[in-house]
Amino acid sequence: MIPTVLTFTKEPRVTLVGAGPGDPELITLKAIRALRQADIVLYDALVSEAILEMIPDGIPTQSVGKRAGEHSYNQDDINALIVESAYHYGHVVRLKGGDPFVFGRGAEEVEYAEKHGVQATVVPGISSAIAVPASANIPVTARGMSESFWVITGTTKAGDISSDVALAAQSKATVVILMGVNKLGEILALFGKHGKDHVPAAVIHNGTLPGQRNVIGTVATLPALAEAEGIGSPAVIVVGEVVRYASQLEKLNYRAFEWPIDNDVNRSKLNFV
Amino acid sequence: MIPTVLTFTKEPRVTLVGAGPGDPELITLKAIRALRQADIVLYDALVSEAILEMIPDGIPTQSVGKRAGEHSYNQDDINALIVESAYHYGHVVRLKGGDPFVFGRGAEEVEYAEKHGVQATVVPGISSAIAVPASANIPVTARGMSESFWVITGTTKAGDISSDVALAAQSKATVVILMGVNKLGEILALFGKHGKDHVPAAVIHNGTLPGQRNVIGTVATLPALAEAEGIGSPAVIVVGEVVRYASQLEKLNYRAFEWPIDNDVNRSKLNFV
Repeated sequence: MIPTVLTFTKEPRVTLVGAGPGDPELITLKAIRALRQADIVLYDALVSEAILEMIPDGIPTQSVGKRAGEHSYNQDDINALIVESAYHYGHVVRLKGGDPFVFGRGAEEVEYAEKHGVQATVVPGISSAIAVPASANIPVTARGMSESFWVITGTTKAGDISSDVALAAQSKATVVILMGVNKLGEILALFGKHGKDHVPAAVIHNGTLPGQRNVIGTVATLPALAEAEGIGSPAVIVVGEVVRYASQLEKLNYRAFEWPIDNDVNRSKLNFV
Repeated sequence: MIPTVLTFTKEPRVTLVGAGPGDPELITLKAIRALRQADIVLYDALVSEAILEMIPDGIPTQSVGKRAGEHSYNQDDINALIVESAYHYGHVVRLKGGDPFVFGRGAEEVEYAEKHGVQATVVPGISSAIAVPASANIPVTARGMSESFWVITGTTKAGDISSDVALAAQSKATVVILMGVNKLGEILALFGKHGKDHVPAAVIHNGTLPGQRNVIGTVATLPALAEAEGIGSPAVIVVGEVVRYASQLEKLNYRAFEWPIDNDVNRSKLNFV
């Protein structure tokens, strides 16, 4: 896929950019600068329209999204496309939901690119692991209550529940599980096994976005509550005493995020780059 | 401290804002908007000058920093100051390093404010827990290598090493320890006890900032290496197989961050709000 006669004039490089958890205001200045310096943008399905609108006119863009059900691009395809695009266009921005190094397969993309002579840079993004609980008023840590938080993928390479979940169920950490909502019952059963039936637990769908829905319960009650609410992917699961803050603060009319945001960001075209 | 006769005309409220790990480009648009809508800004010691320059002229600012050695403001003072300022000025922006809900005592500040009639909002920030390893080329997760990461404070309320560290030492998770560099030897000894002497480990000082220094070794070798380099606070400790990416990528001339950034961000005054 890499041309043997190199015809590019620009240095081939890739910047992996985290777009954040959904709310387009949760993108960083560094991410926006990368988009403005892109020669092509390859973006994931979870990146919002408002963020895609920050890409300057005339820059080619391509979705490499893997929405549930669609499998037009597998990871090998994406890796090859990054390298091919870098040699063809120059600076590739690989725009990903959340943070590129949190279950984003960023490590693989960086390694593949570098092995093929394409320099790679990473721009961290706001991770759903922290920001989505926050959007439901849940702090992942709280002094005297939780001294740590453990972030786990619900789905491993082999498609199983990670064995880390069983160990996490025995810890005092706040446990945050991404990509696990389809196995919510199985996952929480592991916590129940370790005597945690009464520990508060929450599942948050579309966190930081207008369609956000929070379901708050306990390890024992959450699966039925979430099913009754029809909660599906994308969603973040949180288990731990800190989930108590969720209802506590809702009673006080806590505003975790303001929505809708104004569109000034797009209108002004951010003329600082 | 709250006046019994309320003389304010503005709604008293507080927005806890995460300023990110150090690099001023790693602030979010939402954070900047909050700064532009502030009536007063109360900021921590770890917030950089470049970010303070994003505060519009004429907005009062006050450091409530707790740098090592200084203890001009304890947490009770800060809580009271937030509430007092909200009733006096209106919109308080409480600007904190990293993310407000990751060991930032944000939960306490929100709870205290709400209890005293001050509505609280949170703007997540890029957490050092993820971005500082990334700045040393270390992904906190990597498919087939690490299915989870566990973020722990090195120093608990009681001043001890968190008991979570001993459990984490038995897990397969990437372990990220914040505020633990002064106990690096003790912390890594817990990993050594569980047969992890040869597991790669790193300590990163001033991550994402110009004075960044990375020390890479193993659980067994890192304490001496870090001491030889004179590594002190602030620093992030990472233990796990993913630390292998650090040297691997350095050999390939990997650029995790571009520095220095241009100053256009400040010059333009970000006229989108």
